[in-house]
Amino acid sequence: MIAAGVDIGGSYIKAGLVVVRTGRILQRSTMRFPGGKGPEAVFDAVEEQIRHMLGEQGMTASDLRSIGIAVPGSLDADRSRVVHAYNLDFHDVAVRESVEQRFPGVPVVALNDADAATLAEHRYGVLKGTRTSVLLTLGTGVGGGLILGGKLFAGGMGRGVELGHMTLRYDGRHHDCGNRGCVEMYCNADALKAGAPGRPVEEVIEGIRAGDPGMEPALERYTDALAGALTSIVNLLDPEVIALGGGVSHAGMPLVEALSVKVQKRSFSHAAPRIELAALGNDAGLVGAAIAHNNL
Amino acid sequence: MIAAGVDIGGSYIKAGLVVVRTGRILQRSTMRFPGGKGPEAVFDAVEEQIRHMLGEQGMTASDLRSIGIAVPGSLDADRSRVVHAYNLDFHDVAVRESVEQRFPGVPVVALNDADAATLAEHRYGVLKGTRTSVLLTLGTGVGGGLILGGKLFAGGMGRGVELGHMTLRYDGRHHDCGNRGCVEMYCNADALKAGAPGRPVEEVIEGIRAGDPGMEPALERYTDALAGALTSIVNLLDPEVIALGGGVSHAGMPLVEALSVKVQKRSFSHAAPRIELAALGNDAGLVGAAIAHNNL
Repeated sequence: MIAAGVDIGGSYIKAGLVVVRTGRILQRSTMRFPGGKGPEAVFDAVEEQIRHMLGEQGMTASDLRSIGIAVPGSLDADRSRVVHAYNLDFHDVAVRESVEQRFPGVPVVALNDADAATLAEHRYGVLKGTRTSVLLTLGTGVGGGLILGGKLFAGGMGRGVELGHMTLRYDGRHHDCGNRGCVEMYCNADALKAGAPGRPVEEVIEGIRAGDPGMEPALERYTDALAGALTSIVNLLDPEVIALGGGVSHAGMPLVEALSVKVQKRSFSHAAPRIELAALGNDAGLVGAAIAHNNL
Repeated sequence: MIAAGVDIGGSYIKAGLVVVRTGRILQRSTMRFPGGKGPEAVFDAVEEQIRHMLGEQGMTASDLRSIGIAVPGSLDADRSRVVHAYNLDFHDVAVRESVEQRFPGVPVVALNDADAATLAEHRYGVLKGTRTSVLLTLGTGVGGGLILGGKLFAGGMGRGVELGHMTLRYDGRHHDCGNRGCVEMYCNADALKAGAPGRPVEEVIEGIRAGDPGMEPALERYTDALAGALTSIVNLLDPEVIALGGGVSHAGMPLVEALSVKVQKRSFSHAAPRIELAALGNDAGLVGAAIAHNNL
């Protein structure tokens, strides 16, 4: 069975036709995000991408089991409308209805992009087989998703989870999210710069990955903060696996090893969960969107 | 149906015969904890208490559906042994087997005391009917339990949850638990003194409850920290209700109101969950222990 997954970001729309059984991407398409033209122009672009990919594969829309749309924002409780996706300038947008009108008869589901990535890692990646696990995405922002009871957890009131906005310093600086000293302030990609002044973030990440001793202070400082966040998650949920995704995760095993040591020391049971690099990289969002139907 | 619940604390052993349908305590018994004599002396005392209560009610052990034992510590994954209960000086103690030998044929279950209290609040108290909710106990220590999927959550790896040891200041002082700047350091009963120097804790709690303006700084300071902890829980789990128990909760509605305002401001959705005072008070542990059989 084939499903279409679309990951709408503030810079690019990435779409793919995905083999549901294996997670393999049969055909892909990337387009610039048509900014400033309103949601309908975005959905026109999405339609064009999906029809183009179907054409390349000699398929029609009736061959699709479902279409999934991942957005960087919050959805309402039945996941039919985007409440806010600031990077897309989407506010109260009826995403499901708009896409369904373009593909009559094909089930459409919308979801948060971090939730989509978590679904994909749980079905095909490093969270496979887990009942309690976490994906944390470390990029410009910090987000993630939870698997509880073997299923994606949408929050007890259906308002989603915001791993990047847990508290790391209760009397810290104020953040736009409303909290003070939240995880994102100390664990986003920019936070790596504090330990390596004047160096671009990509260079710091690559230096850590390569074991450059000059990047040791940046790694130490960053993992002190991130270990504090992971310890909160471990002491609250005692997960089997914590997966790390997003740009910072390209720092690779030195990042994982520094975190594992610190989380083991700081967590109550002193038995850290497995910390793993996410397996699906930048494709996680579109793959997870493709399989979201029947998995939410 | 009647079940026996026992709450073993470092000062007292509290026991009760509980009507399972309603949670009413039919008969109760309190004894000093026999410190320094080893676990078997403690279980002798527990046996004596239960047999005494049964005698008062004209019952025998065969009238008991089950016996539940709550302890302030950690248990192994199948909840038959206490791994560590520092206040009791219990380390690797076969609690289930020891009590079963004294009451042949009666099912015995052991559990953490905060988990027991959470079960009781979920069955009879302010967490009733919730699928995702939290009990936080604010006393000498800070603990609590989680309801996820409508059931008590024992941690993803069965090692329990430690709400009091989430991170509130990632680079704060070191704590015995292994973490730095954990919730317990800023939110236990003693933390109330920081805003009211030289006053005994009980007086600060009573002053807050009574609306004494002199206690405003203590309330402000304490709820700044606790709101940071609750915001972590809200942004991670989006619970329906957070219940507050333990000695500090006697500060009552002024505490609840200050927290509600701050959590609403700090949480990502700006929609705080209901924050409630726990309903069962000091009986929650023994009542929860009594109903733990078939509820874990």
